[in-house]
Amino acid sequence: MTAHSEIATQPGDQRYGLRRSVRLPGPLLLDSGAALKPVDIAYETYGTLNADRSNAVLICHALTGDQFVASEHPVTGKPGWWTRAVGPDKPIDPARHFIICANVLGSCLGSSGPASVDPATGTPYAMRFPVITIADMVRAQAMLLDHLGVAQLAAVVGGSMGGMQALVWPTLFPERVRASIVIASTARHSAQNIAFHEVGRQAIMADPRWRGGDYYADGNAPTAGLAVARMAAHITYLSEAGLTEKFGRKLQAREAKTFGFDADFQIESYLRHQGISFVERFDANSYLYITRATDYFDLAEDHGGSLASAFARTNARFCIISFDTDWLYPTAESRNIVHALHAAGRAASFVELSSPFGHDSFLLEAPEMNRVLDGFLRAGA
Amino acid sequence: MTAHSEIATQPGDQRYGLRRSVRLPGPLLLDSGAALKPVDIAYETYGTLNADRSNAVLICHALTGDQFVASEHPVTGKPGWWTRAVGPDKPIDPARHFIICANVLGSCLGSSGPASVDPATGTPYAMRFPVITIADMVRAQAMLLDHLGVAQLAAVVGGSMGGMQALVWPTLFPERVRASIVIASTARHSAQNIAFHEVGRQAIMADPRWRGGDYYADGNAPTAGLAVARMAAHITYLSEAGLTEKFGRKLQAREAKTFGFDADFQIESYLRHQGISFVERFDANSYLYITRATDYFDLAEDHGGSLASAFARTNARFCIISFDTDWLYPTAESRNIVHALHAAGRAASFVELSSPFGHDSFLLEAPEMNRVLDGFLRAGA
Repeated sequence: MTAHSEIATQPGDQRYGLRRSVRLPGPLLLDSGAALKPVDIAYETYGTLNADRSNAVLICHALTGDQFVASEHPVTGKPGWWTRAVGPDKPIDPARHFIICANVLGSCLGSSGPASVDPATGTPYAMRFPVITIADMVRAQAMLLDHLGVAQLAAVVGGSMGGMQALVWPTLFPERVRASIVIASTARHSAQNIAFHEVGRQAIMADPRWRGGDYYADGNAPTAGLAVARMAAHITYLSEAGLTEKFGRKLQAREAKTFGFDADFQIESYLRHQGISFVERFDANSYLYITRATDYFDLAEDHGGSLASAFARTNARFCIISFDTDWLYPTAESRNIVHALHAAGRAASFVELSSPFGHDSFLLEAPEMNRVLDGFLRAGA
Repeated sequence: MTAHSEIATQPGDQRYGLRRSVRLPGPLLLDSGAALKPVDIAYETYGTLNADRSNAVLICHALTGDQFVASEHPVTGKPGWWTRAVGPDKPIDPARHFIICANVLGSCLGSSGPASVDPATGTPYAMRFPVITIADMVRAQAMLLDHLGVAQLAAVVGGSMGGMQALVWPTLFPERVRASIVIASTARHSAQNIAFHEVGRQAIMADPRWRGGDYYADGNAPTAGLAVARMAAHITYLSEAGLTEKFGRKLQAREAKTFGFDADFQIESYLRHQGISFVERFDANSYLYITRATDYFDLAEDHGGSLASAFARTNARFCIISFDTDWLYPTAESRNIVHALHAAGRAASFVELSSPFGHDSFLLEAPEMNRVLDGFLRAGA
């Protein structure tokens, strides 16, 4: 019942990854109590697993990210989202590492999610897809590693929601992770985090095209609601100072205000563009499911309310990185993690980096982050 | 052509204000170049103008506020929005002050706005209402003062968008204002401020019921879009710490997560309630116009880019108050105002108050704010 596919790199293709997907029989037992089967996982790999199978690095992507960490995105044609950290002569290097990045469960780039066909009905799950958690995403990744013959990861690495997965990995599979790198992330979603996601969900559900999630048949998706959701979320990815530096109150290519409702300010047209371009590559129902998974995330809650208890069984070295202008998951959240790791007697490195770009800093040019990543990964080699 | 009306207080009514409105002939010349006529202004007054007409205090309301500063709201039945600061034995006291609060131009509680009838067509203006500015709101208030026979204000007072009006008043009418009190406000909207408003406007315009603003005929208003706009804005009125204190990750009256999309967390149902209750009392087109007015606000820009120049002609004493957890208009914005006032050689008091409740602190119990207000007002009496 396990089926897999590989798409060969096209001539002239800048990608050096392999576009792969696998259908695993499952069942995958979920935190909700539901069982998912089959389980589709779409993933990319870079580099080669070495003889003693000790060089695998799993990269976990963020909320609306994907497996194309260092490969051209099939829809947008854009380069991979983390080529600044992953690639030849980068901290995560296919010459040294066997790099894996899988589309998370619930997403829409090939892994099982609400747009997948429910074998029970032969039609898309839509909102009948089970609600998933960050731990469920990690369990699906573990199934993929089994399929790939990777018993143990040299490291699991992720930023934002990817950092949540990187945190959960050593707690669920203590023997399978030697190092965990958690960037611009948190051990639990705050009330404000939940609030922003709830605005996005309500924007989608308020769109008459959403129709309870059953919009796949005619392809008339709730793009207007999804665009608004993206716009609201996008503000939280940037710092106030970064927005002021980049846009300030600069007008579009006009000499004066129009006294109308077109995009007068550059920040307005920028945000509108973020909304419009997002809906071309992302599924509204997946947005509902994945935001829900992050809102449910509270690592301490799963361990009697103690974050230190969550780390009691882990065997990994941890590296925690935050950015000083990140107000979505501020440095205080990273400090909470580090304090809990220390309370649990775990090895934890922590650094707060300075960047004007807020939460998204980890996706941008960040030489200091690269140095930290490189040093931490080499120390374990 | 001037018509005015007063509604008598009902027996048993808790209101001690007078519900008034006036139709002024205009024209009111607007910053856009358009001329508005007639100009309807709905307002409340409390107390009596003294013999030498020296005790008038104008209160300017915030974005979605109204003239019912210390009177029961006619739609919601709730008490006035600032009874903590306005009333018997409060800093602004009808026993001592003649208190005026007018619904701002562009709003929907009786003053001219997009829901008003355009005399040229006999139908509501909708999006044919001219785009207005904070200065236009102030000019309309000045016309009201002319009508009321108030040549000079003892003080103009406002929080948030009301603070913008309080800032503009002494710059437009230097001889008509003896004191200006600016609370939790700013001299210009930042890129982040504009971004949040743009999300709200896009949510409204994305609602198919909006129909270019022409929804008045059938009353089928874009309530879903307006509710989403309110939810997004509401997050900015509260502090992260306040949200955590009030809601944290507390669940609704259930024992566990539902693994569904109902409001599991209290913050979710709170936000949904904010959205739903808002649409009962506010017009979507007014929301577009008033957010636009605040986004256009940049007091320095109107004076060659120098905020100090804006204050050069003013004769008022200024009192600037900020709250330490306000991230919508943070203390740094108030400091900018104070620095410019000092550079212009104006008298300016400044205090940053401590409160866990973010931007909305000025609407809540704030004994320190009341002491500052009282002291500042009495010093000028």
